[in-house]
Amino acid sequence: MHRFFVHPDLLSKDQVIFPTETARQMRNVLRLKPGDHVVVLDNLGNQFQVEISVINPKQVKGQIIARSTVEQEDMINLHLAFALSQREKVEWILQKCTELGVSRFTPFIAERTLARAKAVDVSKLRRWERIIQEAAEQSGRSRLPELSEVISMQQALKQVNLKREIGLVAWEDENKISLLNILKELLNEIHKTRRVTIFIGPEGGFTEEEIARVQKYALMTVSLGTGILRMETAAIAACAIIMAVCMS
Amino acid sequence: MHRFFVHPDLLSKDQVIFPTETARQMRNVLRLKPGDHVVVLDNLGNQFQVEISVINPKQVKGQIIARSTVEQEDMINLHLAFALSQREKVEWILQKCTELGVSRFTPFIAERTLARAKAVDVSKLRRWERIIQEAAEQSGRSRLPELSEVISMQQALKQVNLKREIGLVAWEDENKISLLNILKELLNEIHKTRRVTIFIGPEGGFTEEEIARVQKYALMTVSLGTGILRMETAAIAACAIIMAVCMS
Repeated sequence: MHRFFVHPDLLSKDQVIFPTETARQMRNVLRLKPGDHVVVLDNLGNQFQVEISVINPKQVKGQIIARSTVEQEDMINLHLAFALSQREKVEWILQKCTELGVSRFTPFIAERTLARAKAVDVSKLRRWERIIQEAAEQSGRSRLPELSEVISMQQALKQVNLKREIGLVAWEDENKISLLNILKELLNEIHKTRRVTIFIGPEGGFTEEEIARVQKYALMTVSLGTGILRMETAAIAACAIIMAVCMS
Repeated sequence: MHRFFVHPDLLSKDQVIFPTETARQMRNVLRLKPGDHVVVLDNLGNQFQVEISVINPKQVKGQIIARSTVEQEDMINLHLAFALSQREKVEWILQKCTELGVSRFTPFIAERTLARAKAVDVSKLRRWERIIQEAAEQSGRSRLPELSEVISMQQALKQVNLKREIGLVAWEDENKISLLNILKELLNEIHKTRRVTIFIGPEGGFTEEEIARVQKYALMTVSLGTGILRMETAAIAACAIIMAVCMS
């Protein structure tokens, strides 16, 4: 059944008014009809069985038939900090890593980042949020991942609190410790903190100064293998490996 | 340094003639000049240091300066059998999974495959080969992954020889055995056979008949986690996890 995140303000006791973009998708893409049933999530832990009552170009409304509490989905809270990059790469990272179970995204500016923070305007952020929402709906997640604003790499490093999370940085020059092995070593700690942050750098890699800073903040550099990965591949691979280990 | 796979026929004792598409890329995209050095691989285990001698719209030639043998790269032979899908998804799978180290790709037709084999003409196959080659060059691989022709799922299953390889099928209804756990269990066997085949199904999943057939051929169904993954995400995640475990 189709699933939609809807802001709680649009939910009354027995009715849902679907927001414009979702309404358009329901009508034009999914071609839903009055009487069709869908699932609505309020991102506060509630889930609603909804029957569509009105669907026309002006509005899409639904009748709430049943309500339940969603299961706590996140056995692990995975935070992906990734270097800002080209539009297509960023969108792929947001979509695929939402499917894989990331809880929070932080795009950051590294020294070798080509894209610039000022180019990230409100319309781009809204587009990113929309991509995350659709991916969360399609992959059956019951909570929306958060999207943080674009910050500097230093700010992103400062935000990592190693007392309550594991902090990792994928680095192509790390040739001793693989991501998988460090996760295995830290498994007890991960099951305690239930929080992992992983940094994925820009296409050109991190600079020496950046790696020095990573070490100053006591995050661990890890290898993703011997091949040179594009940054979006690195992000997806890292998230897949972390989720697989943490769920095992 | 830039790396290019060149068919052995285009290599003489001291000279390389670059094929048309590579020549175009070298001239127009990478803007290489006479005197620039590149690495040429013949996909037979040889690697050449080459200095560009001629670069113009008609031809690109290079002088071989040194020759060496490439290291055996593949600690594991990973074969990805994936259901044929939309153009964009297939291209992403080929590109990303080449980066991750897949040795062979087999696109197959499942019952719920929307795309049809007859739509895969020579020009499409050549485009796929080109994507694989560029991804292999950029990720520093010294061997090109093979691309098999499109076959039926049954044929693809028949080709798996469980005496000399591990055969796995990602299935969204498998809720007991995760890919990571099965790999851990079979690690000794994997280190002996050094061959793994993984099947990734179409968007709509496998049918009951297909899963019955998988079981008949004694392949193991595995889970990629609780979320519903798009097929290209499933392919990339599975390959990332397999490579990480087999390299550890």
